[in-house]
Amino acid sequence: MNGGGAGKLADPKEDPLPGVDTYKNFNTIDWVREKSKGRDRLREIHSKSKESLWALLLSISDAFSGWLLMLLVGLMAGAVAAAIDITTHWLTDMKDGVCLVGFWFNHEHCCSTSNQTTFLEWDRCPQWQSWAQLITGTSQGGFAYMVDYLMYMFWALLFAFLAVALVGAFGSHASGSGIPEIKTILSGFIFRGFLGKWTLVIKTVTMVLAVSSGLAVGKEGPLVHVACCCANVLCHHFTKFRQNEAKRREVLSAAAAVGVSVAFEAPIGGVLFSLEEVSYYFSLKTLCRSFFAALVAAYTLHSINPFGSGRHGPFDVNFHADWHPVELAPFILLGIFGGLWGALFIKANIAWCHTRKSTRLGRCPVTEVLLVMALTALLAFPNIYTRMSGEELLSKLFDDCSLFNSSLLCGYQQHANTSQTGQGNSAASRPAGEGLRTALWQLALALLFKMIITIITFGIKVPSGVFIPSMVVGAIAGRLLGVGMKQLAYHHHDWMLSRDWCSPRRDCITPALYAVVGAAACLGGVTRMTVSLVVIMFEVTGRREHIMPLLAATMTSKWVAGAFVRVGFDEALIRLKGYPFLEPKDEIEHRSLAKDVMRPRKSDPALAVLTQDGMTLGQVEALVKSTCFSGFPVVVSQQSKRLVGFVLRRDLLVAIDDARRRQKGVVSASQVLFRQHAPTQPPKAPPHLRLRDILDLSPFTISDRMPMGITVDIFRKLGLRQCLVTHNGRLLGIITKKDIVKHMAQIANRDPDSVFLN
Amino acid sequence: MNGGGAGKLADPKEDPLPGVDTYKNFNTIDWVREKSKGRDRLREIHSKSKESLWALLLSISDAFSGWLLMLLVGLMAGAVAAAIDITTHWLTDMKDGVCLVGFWFNHEHCCSTSNQTTFLEWDRCPQWQSWAQLITGTSQGGFAYMVDYLMYMFWALLFAFLAVALVGAFGSHASGSGIPEIKTILSGFIFRGFLGKWTLVIKTVTMVLAVSSGLAVGKEGPLVHVACCCANVLCHHFTKFRQNEAKRREVLSAAAAVGVSVAFEAPIGGVLFSLEEVSYYFSLKTLCRSFFAALVAAYTLHSINPFGSGRHGPFDVNFHADWHPVELAPFILLGIFGGLWGALFIKANIAWCHTRKSTRLGRCPVTEVLLVMALTALLAFPNIYTRMSGEELLSKLFDDCSLFNSSLLCGYQQHANTSQTGQGNSAASRPAGEGLRTALWQLALALLFKMIITIITFGIKVPSGVFIPSMVVGAIAGRLLGVGMKQLAYHHHDWMLSRDWCSPRRDCITPALYAVVGAAACLGGVTRMTVSLVVIMFEVTGRREHIMPLLAATMTSKWVAGAFVRVGFDEALIRLKGYPFLEPKDEIEHRSLAKDVMRPRKSDPALAVLTQDGMTLGQVEALVKSTCFSGFPVVVSQQSKRLVGFVLRRDLLVAIDDARRRQKGVVSASQVLFRQHAPTQPPKAPPHLRLRDILDLSPFTISDRMPMGITVDIFRKLGLRQCLVTHNGRLLGIITKKDIVKHMAQIANRDPDSVFLN
Repeated sequence: MNGGGAGKLADPKEDPLPGVDTYKNFNTIDWVREKSKGRDRLREIHSKSKESLWALLLSISDAFSGWLLMLLVGLMAGAVAAAIDITTHWLTDMKDGVCLVGFWFNHEHCCSTSNQTTFLEWDRCPQWQSWAQLITGTSQGGFAYMVDYLMYMFWALLFAFLAVALVGAFGSHASGSGIPEIKTILSGFIFRGFLGKWTLVIKTVTMVLAVSSGLAVGKEGPLVHVACCCANVLCHHFTKFRQNEAKRREVLSAAAAVGVSVAFEAPIGGVLFSLEEVSYYFSLKTLCRSFFAALVAAYTLHSINPFGSGRHGPFDVNFHADWHPVELAPFILLGIFGGLWGALFIKANIAWCHTRKSTRLGRCPVTEVLLVMALTALLAFPNIYTRMSGEELLSKLFDDCSLFNSSLLCGYQQHANTSQTGQGNSAASRPAGEGLRTALWQLALALLFKMIITIITFGIKVPSGVFIPSMVVGAIAGRLLGVGMKQLAYHHHDWMLSRDWCSPRRDCITPALYAVVGAAACLGGVTRMTVSLVVIMFEVTGRREHIMPLLAATMTSKWVAGAFVRVGFDEALIRLKGYPFLEPKDEIEHRSLAKDVMRPRKSDPALAVLTQDGMTLGQVEALVKSTCFSGFPVVVSQQSKRLVGFVLRRDLLVAIDDARRRQKGVVSASQVLFRQHAPTQPPKAPPHLRLRDILDLSPFTISDRMPMGITVDIFRKLGLRQCLVTHNGRLLGIITKKDIVKHMAQIANRDPDSVFLN
Repeated sequence: MNGGGAGKLADPKEDPLPGVDTYKNFNTIDWVREKSKGRDRLREIHSKSKESLWALLLSISDAFSGWLLMLLVGLMAGAVAAAIDITTHWLTDMKDGVCLVGFWFNHEHCCSTSNQTTFLEWDRCPQWQSWAQLITGTSQGGFAYMVDYLMYMFWALLFAFLAVALVGAFGSHASGSGIPEIKTILSGFIFRGFLGKWTLVIKTVTMVLAVSSGLAVGKEGPLVHVACCCANVLCHHFTKFRQNEAKRREVLSAAAAVGVSVAFEAPIGGVLFSLEEVSYYFSLKTLCRSFFAALVAAYTLHSINPFGSGRHGPFDVNFHADWHPVELAPFILLGIFGGLWGALFIKANIAWCHTRKSTRLGRCPVTEVLLVMALTALLAFPNIYTRMSGEELLSKLFDDCSLFNSSLLCGYQQHANTSQTGQGNSAASRPAGEGLRTALWQLALALLFKMIITIITFGIKVPSGVFIPSMVVGAIAGRLLGVGMKQLAYHHHDWMLSRDWCSPRRDCITPALYAVVGAAACLGGVTRMTVSLVVIMFEVTGRREHIMPLLAATMTSKWVAGAFVRVGFDEALIRLKGYPFLEPKDEIEHRSLAKDVMRPRKSDPALAVLTQDGMTLGQVEALVKSTCFSGFPVVVSQQSKRLVGFVLRRDLLVAIDDARRRQKGVVSASQVLFRQHAPTQPPKAPPHLRLRDILDLSPFTISDRMPMGITVDIFRKLGLRQCLVTHNGRLLGIITKKDIVKHMAQIANRDPDSVFLN
């Protein structure tokens, strides 16, 4: 696939690079100037506040407006997430049947209103009728099965069609997870409409439909996008944030934390996710505010309570076992599996995306979605583990076998004495029973199915998060390994290692813990998260004893995956889509200097500069008209090329226009002055046009001999838009952020496998 | 006190500032250059690795050496922390009595070897004898009490004397918490000997003595220092970290996380502490590594197991109650108390430190320590809550009243029916009994005592952390408020608010939770931590339901304290000690420009520059000799002042020395050349001395019109050491990091209360 996929990117010509040039439409922001603007504004409010009580109150309200905004973001995102959860549960259950009491109840809610509370009865509550029961009158027999099958496929295809149709008709920004785009936006690029009201509505609705349809997509990534949309929409009501792109991005960083917080009810993990994965600049102030917003959102979600009364998060994790250092070996094995899966998934999916682009499939997104949906539903229905939703399956896999658990996964042979002692410590090593063996077969098939379907699903035009599908693959693998280990311990408990720790009567291995570790490992292999992932899983399970196994597995997984594919899935998508993202981690290993990257190149025409005096208005206007640069350096003279400042095209045009309309006597022959003191001129000459006010007198400059490693560091850390290049005090050229992104892409592309391996 | 204390700092003269000039001895590092050096090294190893298998192995071992170092830091810090814990417990108990089985057992260990396991019997186990029992044969009566009192004071004074004597004789770096110094080091300054082997040994020993003596000091801050010493000592064995100051600081950032991790068994909180409070640059790589090291350290400590078998951290937190939104009101009240306490503590302690400096006390640290110790021991012994160690007191306050808890704090009147139902839900609202009232009086006295003694203790010449003493104050206040609220709820359970939630038979208020929240609030007020503090307390209590109350209290506390004293205790100490620390959070609000800050000032002699040609060796040597600058800009000519590069004094001296010894014909009349192509010169002239190799061709430059707000940002984010200032391409002057620190101190000092209020 490297030949097919990466080959397209590895264009040997220097310019233009396909896939890298697509971002001509993007504008970048200048962090330093935006921050400086914010400081000026603060200073003004501060100095005014001493004048009157009203101004003082305004200044105080301004100081707290950030916190108010965070509160609102938390409340809004929490409420939206709750609505999404409730609707998703309802629609997911609608594929199976309907509630007779009221069609708007989901299965759990429908049956919990009746008095039957035990699990077995709950499963057969009379108010809930499967479609077969409703249509044929019975739930038994082949015909009933076929009716259920068809109804399942009907609803699935309907939901999927609605989702893709809505995305296609109203919001192309709503497809995918949105995290690659948010990363790009947070790094300083402007991406109009991506976080608007319309995207919020369409993404929320289509995400519910896509998840309910049973496609192998999760809602965690899209929730981050939804939370960012909420934040962006709310920003418009606060002057402080509406007018300042840097401040807005601080709020969006916090919103990313909120998204993960509501997805997993993990506020700390959410903040670390934003810090580690999504954000570009993450100040301490943002840390505190995002934690606050994440907490508010989690509490809002919790009080609307979609997860049911007993649970503490999306998955019903329920085990309290400890682990033995020996078990680190299988955990690391899971890490290796997770890493291999991550690498395979990224390579295969990117290759699939390339295939899609180059074939007819790419032009018919609706057909593709329906085909994938039909395949998914057709294969998923017969196997109970694939028929249920990803979250439900994870809950089952993360749940340990308690004594009264009747599920197949806990189908161990009963010891006579177990029920006598009845300590609840029921899962003490027992041989596997018939039920468990069936379950294992089904799980193994489910694993294979999920792996294939996940690879072909991503990239279709519906909202799709990669978290849950990756975790499902890992959880199944982990549970299988856990059951295997348990049997090994049972049959060979006289082995030297296990003797002390795993006597036949003690419960020494918890397959559910293996499922949790496996889920973390696979998610880690795909996304390359480490600390945030461990903390999220810790918050999901609530047991700090499990931090060590989780860390061992995710670190292994990251390293293994990194050996095959250097970047995580989100960054691979950023490269695939050609977004102008300057990676914060990438080290530049080439010895190039600033002069190799700056414009103009040797073959280009000379740099377009203005002089601080001596140019007429007509000359300036001609220069501006003949170029499309967004700014012009101003020098002392064309000979000395000593730099005076930098003027933005926009400012220049406005100022000239203004002067022509208002200032008497300004004609094309008027001299344009950027210097402080006007030179003497013949008495009859037209008046000067003084433009020093619009001149930025402190543009960033670097030397032409500056190594690109340091230059990239400067751009990253300061968030510059452009930087002027000088040699011995003479202006030579200019480097923009886009030049740097392009240069780094070129370096990477010298190596054919670079997108994946370098 | 502002008149006395801050007055000294508010010197109106511009130069020199007392307290700001003390850092003449500090060197700063240049982060960008160090990082660039690291990149070059990596590139070299990388390119060599393709040559031979051995080089490949070396390159792999180099890549993993960071992880190995982290593992070693975790193991070493964990082991040292365990040793400290065990010794501290033993010595603390030695003040009360001795174990007859072996004097090296502490009270708990001594009695747990016997078979008496219940709490009441444990308290009277025959193997453990108080000093009175041992000397007078009885533990009853006034004489025995006096003997115990005297022995308590004797041991306390002995430990305190040993601690201060050791600090005075061998390691002046060992006093205080060490966190202000570590922050300064991590910000890029070099502070020789502060993290050496010798400091490690002395700090460890004296910290045990100081904590055991019963002084109002904690061991959390010093543990951070000890962990950093461990890391620094281990760094010397790894080339990669020994030779690179920037890389070393990454390891030290991780070590700070390790310190907090072992102090509270809170690895996640430790990492966030390092990120939020201590570190200056915290890369994502460091995040992952510090988490690993913090986990390893916590596990090491846990497996040596100093906290006893049942506990999960330093405090025995034991309650599982939930809270009601109405209780946010008292929690916020605790936050206000914490903030007020924080502000009072910082102001009073800094004032006390100024008094100490200006009186005889400052010259006799031993006398001071003994006086404070005597006062502490004298007042502490009669009250059981002050007699016990801070950690033990916190454990008691954080422990909820269970049914069989005989401690005075749980002395509620028994309902007849409580013991009948006997559900363990024992603390259902009951009126306060006689015992509880006694306990409350004692606690109130303890609060007053702790507040005063904490203020006068800090600054004495022994290792002292501020965490535990602050938490103790807050925990006592919180517990008092909690008991009060409980009584209020009992006596007025028909109030509108409490009716639904707090019926007389239900347990609705947990005083232990109030203690935890109070402890967090007071610690927050003193240190201004927020997220890291909440996460640490969350890890200590292990209940995520309590995150919201903790966040509410710490945020309130931070705001309230910030209204009175702008900076936290550590930063106040940094200012007091005059360390050259460029605060990462401080916004510069003045409109000054780079030209106002740069050297030379208008009255100074012109900037010492070299020219790229035309200077003889003799002239260069004279210039170097006549100045003490650490580097010299090189310009095209004295007239044009166009900048070519920057040369370090050290490099220049080495190169000249080298040339004089090895290069034939180099004399004082030889021309020194920094340019690439030598100009033609008369045939008999002595040979050139070419020095372009030592020239940094890409020094950082800014314009003289650059606002200082942006300049400070550049210095902070890039970690520069110096930056050249140009005007229209001509070199004007230079700004060093020290100039900036000095400038910011001057701005702050214009306002007399600035150290505290600005």
